[in-house]
Amino acid sequence: MILTPRLLGLLKLGLLLSLLGAMTAVQAADPLPSWNDGETKQSIISFVDKTTKEGSPGFVPPEQRVATFDNDGTLWAEQPIYFQLLYAIDKVKEMAPQHPEWKQQEPFASIIKGDTKKALEGGKPALMQLLAATHTGMTGEEFQDSVKKWLATARHPETNRPYTEMVYQPMLELLKYLRANDFQTYIVSGGGIDFMRTFAEGTYGIPPEQVVGSSLKAKYEMRDGKPVIVKLPEVNLIDDKAGKPVGIYQHIGRRPIFAAGNSDGDFEMLQWTTAGEGPRFGLLLHHTDGKREWAYDHPSHVGQLDKALAAAPKEGWTVVDMKDDWKVIFPWGNLKAASGQ
Amino acid sequence: MILTPRLLGLLKLGLLLSLLGAMTAVQAADPLPSWNDGETKQSIISFVDKTTKEGSPGFVPPEQRVATFDNDGTLWAEQPIYFQLLYAIDKVKEMAPQHPEWKQQEPFASIIKGDTKKALEGGKPALMQLLAATHTGMTGEEFQDSVKKWLATARHPETNRPYTEMVYQPMLELLKYLRANDFQTYIVSGGGIDFMRTFAEGTYGIPPEQVVGSSLKAKYEMRDGKPVIVKLPEVNLIDDKAGKPVGIYQHIGRRPIFAAGNSDGDFEMLQWTTAGEGPRFGLLLHHTDGKREWAYDHPSHVGQLDKALAAAPKEGWTVVDMKDDWKVIFPWGNLKAASGQ
Repeated sequence: MILTPRLLGLLKLGLLLSLLGAMTAVQAADPLPSWNDGETKQSIISFVDKTTKEGSPGFVPPEQRVATFDNDGTLWAEQPIYFQLLYAIDKVKEMAPQHPEWKQQEPFASIIKGDTKKALEGGKPALMQLLAATHTGMTGEEFQDSVKKWLATARHPETNRPYTEMVYQPMLELLKYLRANDFQTYIVSGGGIDFMRTFAEGTYGIPPEQVVGSSLKAKYEMRDGKPVIVKLPEVNLIDDKAGKPVGIYQHIGRRPIFAAGNSDGDFEMLQWTTAGEGPRFGLLLHHTDGKREWAYDHPSHVGQLDKALAAAPKEGWTVVDMKDDWKVIFPWGNLKAASGQ
Repeated sequence: MILTPRLLGLLKLGLLLSLLGAMTAVQAADPLPSWNDGETKQSIISFVDKTTKEGSPGFVPPEQRVATFDNDGTLWAEQPIYFQLLYAIDKVKEMAPQHPEWKQQEPFASIIKGDTKKALEGGKPALMQLLAATHTGMTGEEFQDSVKKWLATARHPETNRPYTEMVYQPMLELLKYLRANDFQTYIVSGGGIDFMRTFAEGTYGIPPEQVVGSSLKAKYEMRDGKPVIVKLPEVNLIDDKAGKPVGIYQHIGRRPIFAAGNSDGDFEMLQWTTAGEGPRFGLLLHHTDGKREWAYDHPSHVGQLDKALAAAPKEGWTVVDMKDDWKVIFPWGNLKAASGQ
């Protein structure tokens, strides 16, 4: 056979097509490469297959494929404490020179002295004071610029990595896998909506309009002849616990068919999601790996997981055991040497 | 030339391709067939061309192509009065037998007697009472079922058509045209978010998650062992005037590049939208056609348009003159015989 240019072209095309075919086959074979094979991974894949296969009794039309994810402890880490709180603490230190009165005023005085633990002993009122001082009074754009600057320079106290690298590789794969199957992926988190919107698109591929979070009231006004949105020191929604289904109802207007969380703050979101008709998936991430991440479900400041974990078997929720179900924790590896892994 | 099956196949393919080409050309020639040729139509098309042409200085990446539309008087009619108010009135009549006390209580007494005008003389307090009685206390699903039932059977007092047919054909084309160019189309309306979400997807192709509106507080609770969202008699957001940019900020988290409205209630939304950098489009629909629709801009109950109309030239907003710019008003034709059209 003589290899004419035309034949050569066809051969190249054929090669390209088989290559593409092979790549597709590999992808199809394992959409969740960082998840260990086993019951958990299989239950996710079965759910996606069932809901996306046209003609199957569990088929869900694409527009109804809403998946909601908690953020702190579900998509990114939350130890030693919520990262947004670390932002507020850094911000207080940065603002301190303009606020000499803070030296005599808790929780600011302790934060300036570097005693975060003591500052947080003030409980919810202390938190609200921190929030008011660092999250309100400025415009939405000013706040987001400040958060972006912080995210670009601040480092996690234990790993020395940017906070946006403290994300869970298996969850990034899960988000992509769901989106590849025409799911809409939302964040529904107790964290601040404005805070999360600064990085959710770049970090998770989740655009601002698909981020639901706790929020403050805001007002529209003119400043120097330009319209701005000003953040007010008044709570609009606490998007946690029973506030999560309310946030979903207000923002999305559809009940999710898939919800993922890691604490009792996610109980109602999972309950609301899985109480609907047709196929539903509730995912509860259990922080079981003290070697590669942090093992906890009942600490003082973050991630209490009693009620939801106890309810999981009855409610049919899938508990993800980080130690057993995940091959790797972070995109760059694991927190500590994974001895015995 | 002998027509072998292979050649025939190629000819067929060629025919198909030119047909497709011709169809595309026709579509490209007029994406807004119900709009009269002229400055208004041309300004819309130029804006879309400019923002979607890669490499053009006005290019806007698809994820930032957010377009927001008022609903009452912009996407569907609002005469003789907001349709949602007509729902509340019908609902009061339906509920009256269970509320004998209403016979002695305004605004209910007048509504039951059929004197809507007198009922509305009570102003905002009367409206809030109507709203509380007909929009709260039930679950979100119960409310939406009730609205759907009403929309399926209620008829417009003047046209005797379902309210979902009282939509503007040229605006339906504009929504489609923008979406075909990768714009996200949102409703941002003073109307109730739950009310609009019952029909926006079917009527406008706008899914629930892209509907922003006025809203009530809600709570999550268990009823008969099932979780529900209950609508509370407490305002969450009045998505009108300065509330519109706030609603956009909270729900979408991006500033639109295109906004359309028809009253002073839309002033701030257009201002906020067009004050941003880069190409922006503000559309103000002026109800000028007393023959084919209703001519008004300063009535007692709906659609006051003084401030926004006066600001339009300075702000660079495009005023759509319904009489001159639209070939047809509704998908089924015009309200009255279009004499002289």
